[in-house]
Amino acid sequence: MKAVINTIYESKLATLKDKIAVLSAPVQLTIVTVGEDPASKVYVRNKIRLFDELGLTCNHITLAEETTTQSDLDEIAANAEHAILFQLPLPNGLEAPDLPASVDVDGFGSEALGQLVLGQNSILPCTVQATIDIIASHFGENNFAGLKVAVVGRSNIVGKPLAIELINRQSTVSSFNSRSDLESVDWKRYDVVVVATGAYGVLESTQFFEGQLIIDVGINRVDGKLVGDVKHNLEIEPMAAITPVPGGVGRLTCLHVLGNAVKLAECAQG
Amino acid sequence: MKAVINTIYESKLATLKDKIAVLSAPVQLTIVTVGEDPASKVYVRNKIRLFDELGLTCNHITLAEETTTQSDLDEIAANAEHAILFQLPLPNGLEAPDLPASVDVDGFGSEALGQLVLGQNSILPCTVQATIDIIASHFGENNFAGLKVAVVGRSNIVGKPLAIELINRQSTVSSFNSRSDLESVDWKRYDVVVVATGAYGVLESTQFFEGQLIIDVGINRVDGKLVGDVKHNLEIEPMAAITPVPGGVGRLTCLHVLGNAVKLAECAQG
Repeated sequence: MKAVINTIYESKLATLKDKIAVLSAPVQLTIVTVGEDPASKVYVRNKIRLFDELGLTCNHITLAEETTTQSDLDEIAANAEHAILFQLPLPNGLEAPDLPASVDVDGFGSEALGQLVLGQNSILPCTVQATIDIIASHFGENNFAGLKVAVVGRSNIVGKPLAIELINRQSTVSSFNSRSDLESVDWKRYDVVVVATGAYGVLESTQFFEGQLIIDVGINRVDGKLVGDVKHNLEIEPMAAITPVPGGVGRLTCLHVLGNAVKLAECAQG
Repeated sequence: MKAVINTIYESKLATLKDKIAVLSAPVQLTIVTVGEDPASKVYVRNKIRLFDELGLTCNHITLAEETTTQSDLDEIAANAEHAILFQLPLPNGLEAPDLPASVDVDGFGSEALGQLVLGQNSILPCTVQATIDIIASHFGENNFAGLKVAVVGRSNIVGKPLAIELINRQSTVSSFNSRSDLESVDWKRYDVVVVATGAYGVLESTQFFEGQLIIDVGINRVDGKLVGDVKHNLEIEPMAAITPVPGGVGRLTCLHVLGNAVKLAECAQG
């Protein structure tokens, strides 16, 4: 699967470079971080590096955990004029402001999500877009209708918007969560299983079958190693195609932050 | 099931009357219709009658099919100061304006739907609320988590928002649509099957089992008779509990137009 991800990555990046070349409006991004979350630092560094490589401006606003208030964040959001994101998780009960769709590069705000439900938006949450890309690459861009997809996890930033987008594309979608009886599920019934629980080992590589596509959205640190949500049985070769962690969904997710910033710049240009 | 629906109806109505009695803001509704759709006339009459019975104001704006433009509708929407709805279907390609949540009594607009995805809204589309009520009455208000629910149909006004609300409530939700292979589905797996396809006979009463709750959202006219989406085999007593049409979901849906108008008046009051 690593080669597949690479191919998708290179193809999407090339398309984005072409779009950026003909845009008259500048593609910009502002990233706001609060405090010193180590995982956030890695994600932010990757985003900044990608923008740097393409000669684009990425502003990084770093706020101190001790002194930052909700109204500080709200004020930054209210003044945003181009693509902006508040890197999650935020400390001390701070919440990411509900951004207007015109600057909401993550697509996490209520305006972008409402447009998603109505099938009217172009901005998908970056991890959702990455998952859609991988399914499209495996089954074909025009073959979502009737595809049987299980989405395990119902977060506001992955599971729920992914289920909505798949319903928009006429897939047959089953949404599972921590209260679902996963033991009794016959996973064989699904063409695609997306695992986005945020917990390692909820499902195992040996539970899946030939012809299935398993998309592992999780990123967990176990014994100092980065792993996904799917537990890999190293003694038994998996029959299904399973996306790797790291170097799978996450790699494409980072690219789609740029992709969404380009879309917002295109919209601003009119 | 008719008795169950009646019980829910009377109980909800009593609660609403209590709420209206203590509200200082008036509960008002404006209904906009364009043209002479006969089914719309029935729905509108039922809503007006309910408001009349409670001594509440329901304004009905009737517009001619020939002369009404999109900007007429948009202007009415822009000036709305309390609960308003544009009765569907609208003729001539006219679209219901995307209402702000503060006046969106149907909950069909992008703002209300975005809040729904985030689990932050109090206004559900009326048919969705009616379906939730029936499930709550059958299985218990606190027993949605882990409940296996099939939602057949993916419209913006029923199927999709219902799936989202059920995911919010931690049900295990499967969403089917016209491209799903319904023949191969083992319906026995579901505690609840909601049929909202808008087409008569997609599923039959004999396909369901004891202990299951089947909620028939459809309203179709077949041989001059009102029927749901579920085809009833009159020779074989159904094993599952199936909501009737008419007198099922539709009766509660009408009540929730009032319920949502009360909620919007409460919000306006602060």
